[in-house]
Formats: sequence, C-alpha cells, structure tokens
Amino acid sequence: MRLKVRSKVWLENNGVIVFGEGKSRLLKEIEKTGSINSAARSMGISYRRAWAYVAAIEKRLGIKLVDRVRGGTSGGGSRLTRPGRDLVRKFEKLNRPVRDFTDIEFRKVFAK
Amino acid sequence: MRLKVRSKVWLENNGVIVFGEGKSRLLKEIEKTGSINSAARSMGISYRRAWAYVAAIEKRLGIKLVDRVRGGTSGGGSRLTRPGRDLVRKFEKLNRPVRDFTDIEFRKVFAK
Repeated sequence: MRLKVRSKVWLENNGVIVFGEGKSRLLKEIEKTGSINSAARSMGISYRRAWAYVAAIEKRLGIKLVDRVRGGTSGGGSRLTRPGRDLVRKFEKLNRPVRDFTDIEFRKVFAK
Repeated sequence: MRLKVRSKVWLENNGVIVFGEGKSRLLKEIEKTGSINSAARSMGISYRRAWAYVAAIEKRLGIKLVDRVRGGTSGGGSRLTRPGRDLVRKFEKLNRPVRDFTDIEFRKVFAK
C-alpha cells in the first residue's frame, strides 16, 4: 500500500465557491496564451464554458478579470486585468505553501 | 464581500480516495456512541450506508477498523479497533494543522 495525501484550497463568498485551483489554472492559461480559446482547449473544456467560468468569477467577486484586446498584428486576443493577475498571484501564494505544508505534515504523522 | 478560505485533506491509495474528514467523523461518532446506528443517525446517513463506508475503508486499507461487541449490560455495540483509533488520531493530527496553516496564510496573503 502506498498511501498518499491530497489537499485542496478554495475561496468562498457567503458559502458560494468563488475561486480554486481549476479556475486559477484557467486564468494562468489565458495569460500565457493570450486567448480564451487556446486556454479552453488546453484545459479540455469548451470556449463557451471557459467564458462562463470567467464571467461567474467576475460576477461573484465584482471585478473584471479578463480584457478583450482588439486588432493589432496578432488579430487581438484576451489578457488578464491587473485584478485578475493579482487574484492568481495571491491564490498561488496561498495554495503552494498549503500543499507543501500538507505533504510535510503527512510524512511526519504517517511515517512508520 | 467576505472572502473566506476553505481547505480539505484526504488520503488516497493508487488514486482511489481512502479516507477524509467525513469518514473520520463517522469513525469518531462510532467511538463516541459505541454504535454504528447512532453514529449513522448523527451524520444523517442510513445504517446501511455507514456500514458500507466502514467496509470500504477496511477493504482499501486492508485493516479492521470496527469491532462488534456482543452482549453485556448494554446489549452489545460497536467500537473502534486499535488501528481504527490510530487512523483517526493520525488523520486529525494532519488535518487540524493544515486547516490552521491555511487560515493563517490566507489572512497573510489576502489582507489589505
């Protein structure tokens, strides 16, 4: 038997899930690819669903996360707003240490 | 807006969920009440389902968690085996610090 530990962190507002690892990954992909379509593809979800996720977070947090960029040599695209980048940065700053801490505690407690 | 953080820890074996907070609560209730039936009731699940949970964890971990106690003045009941108590103790020893750590980190990162 190879017992492993898993952990998960998410944010809620009035009991409603607002943000978590999946949404953070989606925003990071949008920033990386400059395109909601490419981000959706790399996450294995439809463009429609990706947009719905972004819109839901924006509504729940009351901030704009993604900017539409029109024209230019690349023919436009999408990028995160500053509050969008802030949210991802803060979430990752919280998420990674929790995962590391969980792994360390698990090894301490469940070691023979 | 009142953003809150939530976290969850669970144990897996070969990608299969073996144990988490709900199962830990069930075992603690069995130990407290001395009865799977009472434990099930306090969790709002059926006796059948409670037994199925216990049996599934026992099978996945390959250890006996609950002992049937027959007869006696109380008319018998159920109690945790030593490995059962160990599992609960270890899980809680892991779970509580992770939750506390998550709360502390959240306040640090998401503070104004």
